[in-house]
Amino acid sequence: MRLGIDIGGTNTVWGLVNEQGQILDKGGIKTKAFENFPDYLNALSNSLKPTLEKHEGLKGIGVGAPNANAHTGCIEFAPNLVWGKDIVPLAESCEKEFGLKTFITNDANAAAIGEMRFGAAKGINDFIMVTLGTGVGSGFVVNGQLVYGHDGLAGELGHIIAVRDGRDCGCGRKGCLETYTSATGIVRTAEELLKQNKESLLIGQEPLNGFKIFEAALNDDPLALEIFDFTGKILGQSLADAVAITSPKMIVLFGGLAKSGKFIFDPIQKYFEQNLLKIYQGKVQIVPSQLPENDVAILGAAALVI
Amino acid sequence: MRLGIDIGGTNTVWGLVNEQGQILDKGGIKTKAFENFPDYLNALSNSLKPTLEKHEGLKGIGVGAPNANAHTGCIEFAPNLVWGKDIVPLAESCEKEFGLKTFITNDANAAAIGEMRFGAAKGINDFIMVTLGTGVGSGFVVNGQLVYGHDGLAGELGHIIAVRDGRDCGCGRKGCLETYTSATGIVRTAEELLKQNKESLLIGQEPLNGFKIFEAALNDDPLALEIFDFTGKILGQSLADAVAITSPKMIVLFGGLAKSGKFIFDPIQKYFEQNLLKIYQGKVQIVPSQLPENDVAILGAAALVI
Repeated sequence: MRLGIDIGGTNTVWGLVNEQGQILDKGGIKTKAFENFPDYLNALSNSLKPTLEKHEGLKGIGVGAPNANAHTGCIEFAPNLVWGKDIVPLAESCEKEFGLKTFITNDANAAAIGEMRFGAAKGINDFIMVTLGTGVGSGFVVNGQLVYGHDGLAGELGHIIAVRDGRDCGCGRKGCLETYTSATGIVRTAEELLKQNKESLLIGQEPLNGFKIFEAALNDDPLALEIFDFTGKILGQSLADAVAITSPKMIVLFGGLAKSGKFIFDPIQKYFEQNLLKIYQGKVQIVPSQLPENDVAILGAAALVI
Repeated sequence: MRLGIDIGGTNTVWGLVNEQGQILDKGGIKTKAFENFPDYLNALSNSLKPTLEKHEGLKGIGVGAPNANAHTGCIEFAPNLVWGKDIVPLAESCEKEFGLKTFITNDANAAAIGEMRFGAAKGINDFIMVTLGTGVGSGFVVNGQLVYGHDGLAGELGHIIAVRDGRDCGCGRKGCLETYTSATGIVRTAEELLKQNKESLLIGQEPLNGFKIFEAALNDDPLALEIFDFTGKILGQSLADAVAITSPKMIVLFGGLAKSGKFIFDPIQKYFEQNLLKIYQGKVQIVPSQLPENDVAILGAAALVI
């Protein structure tokens, strides 16, 4: 039995996970409600206390959190965590507070481990997990191991340059994949295309979001279909480049955009194959995550515990 | 003691390598002189016989060869090998012929292993080896292991798209890194810039090659410096993207272009840092190979033997 904790910018959820990947107990607190880390940790401790007292012999704690560095055990400069904008010694603090060995990694890596242990990538030693959310994250698995890099910060597929001198990115550079294929990226695409005064069910729908674009696509709206085609093209091209580096057997897509089904998977698949080097063509499956969205990070975090 | 064999399109060289990476005996045959694999293997066997008889207790054979697949032990569709355009069961044939366990990998991977075992990347668990020759090859090392991918064909950095819809590549696609930063790529750049009728020491120098461009740069030729700047820009940008995937501690450059010293390293370094995501800036060393050019592949091949 292990404890998995998923720290998001808004909510923190935890779950008690058994060997089979079942979540036996669950709880959470509001991440945002605390201005400093000691207060946050105290609240987390209170939320966990009854469960920890009931279950002795826990093997350890795994945590998935934004900007979490597996090598240092710290959250490092997380722009989306009120109490995490500096360096927070998360693993060490949890070990002290709970008396349990604690492992941490970033949320996309935790999702990759969850998918490898319990989901679509079960038994697959070489795959890429791509999370398409507010940002674009990724976890690369090679030889059955997560790629952390020498500094624990590998796997930033969202920040490879998809379009040279393209859209401004929050990271200060231009054309990052994230500016096209995240939840906000697809809205930026919609806004750009709407400015060209095309006819569309999306006209006048403010604020725009991925779900409204999906609904319009369900109604055969040509602009919505064009948005998905463009988004799939950018993502397919970038995934083809990533394949030339690690040659995975599978790419798992997770997050809001991945739930748009064929509207996004068809164009991704098409442009992906078109852009692959011949030796890789027809070999790499692109599939949606097979774990419930709310549980992926908990399961992956729990699986961090060795 | 291990035997390392480096199969190139023109020559095959082999060396007897000890634990310290010293080459104690050396020899070779002309790869090109044989039209089919059995004849080639027979000649290789004759060349090796005296050495194999003298040294009993060899631990095994390692081979670096173009298009060699470490997983299958075969050379697969090697355009530059007269007798290797189909599938050649190299490892199996060597084991039968020499009675020694045989390991194979492609030439860039062999170079990466040589550099990790005996060269610039000694003791480094996460690095990228880039070979800048007729083509551009690469070997990615992650957690101290070579990245082979699920099919043994990972590490084709030369075929990531450096310029979308850019130069035609031999692989059938457009804009591959190799079309800009290989020995032929840099000549293509020179030809393109010469067409703009710039003044240069290179005018009238036919056939152009990397060495002539290097010589012109030594004489402060502005066009030669522009060629290196452009080449370094393309390579620096692409390396910055690769870093976002595996976050290496070091990038080792090998081959003709890497011998142009500051003329190529200065622009690579400049554009590399400019294009890195902030979390990686100032952390990754880019260095030239530290092994003698003719020995790298033999040493790396020998080090394949476990």
